[in-house]
Amino acid sequence: MSLSSNTAFSDFDIQMMQKAIDLARKGVYSTKPNPAVGCVITQQEKIIAEGWHQKAGEPHAERVALDNATESVKGATVYVTLEPCSHHGKTPPCADALVESGVARVVIAMQDPNPLVAGNGIKRLEQAGIVVDSGILSEEAAALNKGFVSAMKSNRPFIRLKVANSLDGRTAMANGESQWITGPESRNQVHLMRAQHGAIVTGVGTVLADDPSLNVRLPDDVLAELGLTAENCHPLRVVLDANLSTPLEAKMLSLPGRTLLMTSKETADQSLDLIERFYQKGAEVIAVESDGDKLDIPSVLSYLLENEKIYDVMVEAGAIVAGAFIQAGMVNELHVFTAPILMGEMAKPMFVLPGLAEMVDKKVFAYQSVQALGEDLYLVLTPKNVSAEEV
Amino acid sequence: MSLSSNTAFSDFDIQMMQKAIDLARKGVYSTKPNPAVGCVITQQEKIIAEGWHQKAGEPHAERVALDNATESVKGATVYVTLEPCSHHGKTPPCADALVESGVARVVIAMQDPNPLVAGNGIKRLEQAGIVVDSGILSEEAAALNKGFVSAMKSNRPFIRLKVANSLDGRTAMANGESQWITGPESRNQVHLMRAQHGAIVTGVGTVLADDPSLNVRLPDDVLAELGLTAENCHPLRVVLDANLSTPLEAKMLSLPGRTLLMTSKETADQSLDLIERFYQKGAEVIAVESDGDKLDIPSVLSYLLENEKIYDVMVEAGAIVAGAFIQAGMVNELHVFTAPILMGEMAKPMFVLPGLAEMVDKKVFAYQSVQALGEDLYLVLTPKNVSAEEV
Repeated sequence: MSLSSNTAFSDFDIQMMQKAIDLARKGVYSTKPNPAVGCVITQQEKIIAEGWHQKAGEPHAERVALDNATESVKGATVYVTLEPCSHHGKTPPCADALVESGVARVVIAMQDPNPLVAGNGIKRLEQAGIVVDSGILSEEAAALNKGFVSAMKSNRPFIRLKVANSLDGRTAMANGESQWITGPESRNQVHLMRAQHGAIVTGVGTVLADDPSLNVRLPDDVLAELGLTAENCHPLRVVLDANLSTPLEAKMLSLPGRTLLMTSKETADQSLDLIERFYQKGAEVIAVESDGDKLDIPSVLSYLLENEKIYDVMVEAGAIVAGAFIQAGMVNELHVFTAPILMGEMAKPMFVLPGLAEMVDKKVFAYQSVQALGEDLYLVLTPKNVSAEEV
Repeated sequence: MSLSSNTAFSDFDIQMMQKAIDLARKGVYSTKPNPAVGCVITQQEKIIAEGWHQKAGEPHAERVALDNATESVKGATVYVTLEPCSHHGKTPPCADALVESGVARVVIAMQDPNPLVAGNGIKRLEQAGIVVDSGILSEEAAALNKGFVSAMKSNRPFIRLKVANSLDGRTAMANGESQWITGPESRNQVHLMRAQHGAIVTGVGTVLADDPSLNVRLPDDVLAELGLTAENCHPLRVVLDANLSTPLEAKMLSLPGRTLLMTSKETADQSLDLIERFYQKGAEVIAVESDGDKLDIPSVLSYLLENEKIYDVMVEAGAIVAGAFIQAGMVNELHVFTAPILMGEMAKPMFVLPGLAEMVDKKVFAYQSVQALGEDLYLVLTPKNVSAEEV
């Protein structure tokens, strides 16, 4: 097997893979838990087919493109954003389909991130005499599927922590008022984010304080463009609730989409009647590891990954739960919507981070993008691990 | 007198005035309290002279340009960013110089912002038969001289409040540590800001906590480019100190540049010996109106404007003084340097804003610019006055 990452790709190759990535992007809302994948097939530098994966259970991008070809694919070049699969899942292996089709060359942006199967698809193609070149625009392709990559590579979901704040770092007035700090453009972006995630995690404190819906509120035509419907667009709502104090009347329990209450094993053992009533309300209750009132965040994430196949987790919570994710080192991206307002020093903080006493303790991030959204700023940051020497 | 603001200016006019504005900009650090002004003179759409005002007491932009002309200015067009003066100041009136020079047309970006003399220079030119067209790029020209315009129009300095904060809205750890939240690029920008201002205002709390220098620390070659020297670059340091508790050993008292302690009349009356000692240390002490421990901000600003001819005030203070300027409605621009770090909920807030209890009380701003500065973001905002209906 040749990694071929030092192949000199042509401008045409780059252009075609960019097109394949753009096709893949159409699926980022609808393919979960599958990765979004795009495919372009060319003959003599002319596009003869395009395809993208639309939904789990439906054909993969390569098959869609092969089916769409406007002329023979014999001897053609295939551009695909992810290494073709070589295993039998819900659909037969794409590597086999490519071999059978008679294409001459397959260009791949990124290998399968699952270390157990990485390279198998490439090997299958090469054994059949197909030229395989991989490693073109691989970062761009990986960025489309951060959750899938994280799950396959690190056995952990990709976690985006969202917070809407004022310029002076506040998320609610002292009286609890928080609607609306940010404007409609920011809120729309939050709904798009929700639609892209397998689960939203919040804390019971937020449920008690705000009785939030944590659903996706987007117009039907927008949902349709994303490949979603008003029924299937909602991420799993996960409430961290060690003492099971979510009210049975909580609004989210009666909304479309599932709600999962995560509690401690101790509470679960003592609350069989209450749990029964939650199930009658349509909610589910799961017990995970905990330390007193604090649920163990890695256990929460493992549960979601292993039992729910959730690769992308969005955290929308109050200062305590949000701070706990940061202190656990379990935030991959911080999404901050900052309104140009001041709320004063009595208003509520963004994060409770116990034990931060000196500057050397500070949590360090790096800005990845900054965007104006209506009157607000939308910042995306990633954590930066600095050694003591660098601080 | 013709306001001529609906004159259709030619592309050449716009280009030349832009050039004049660029020339004026060279003086924004060195002309204070005078406005920065630039001038271009053309003959048959060819530049024959350029000039800009460099320093109070030295020739105005128009005179510099007239002196620089490479050929006769008879019948020439003069582009000047500010209405030529018609009064005798440290230098004779520029309007007279233009009349004597025999130029045919004068194009002016903005009229003199002082309502008492606005239009007089234009009138003088027109009476001499010169064609005057004004109102081209007037906003850009005014933006160069915000302090001068504010002083002339509103009888108040222009006030820029600077704050360096963490992403979660904190300016120091609970233990007082605040060096360095932001990076070297942000700090460099702060020194440039200081060099542009006539005064920096801080509170005695900051002096006691941090013993700051509040001076301009820029390399000599940078200062030279700004038209400044290591001696004359420092703004007046103003400490709001109602009880006169600035230590006689405070670092800023022994640094180049002046320090002015502003105190209450009550304290001043009772502290003649202490005041004498401050004067021996090279500091000055002035009494202004106060309400208990709180000095009256409008009185502070009036003093600086009337007695020190300070048109641009920079506030670099702790949460209490910074909050007081905001609550007094005395902030024209908020300059925020936000580091991509989290400091936690125990760290110190940006602003103490007593009485902000409900969302409707929030202070509303608007982002004017957003810039990456090294690892930080540099945000400039202006206050937005919203009516209750809009909120």
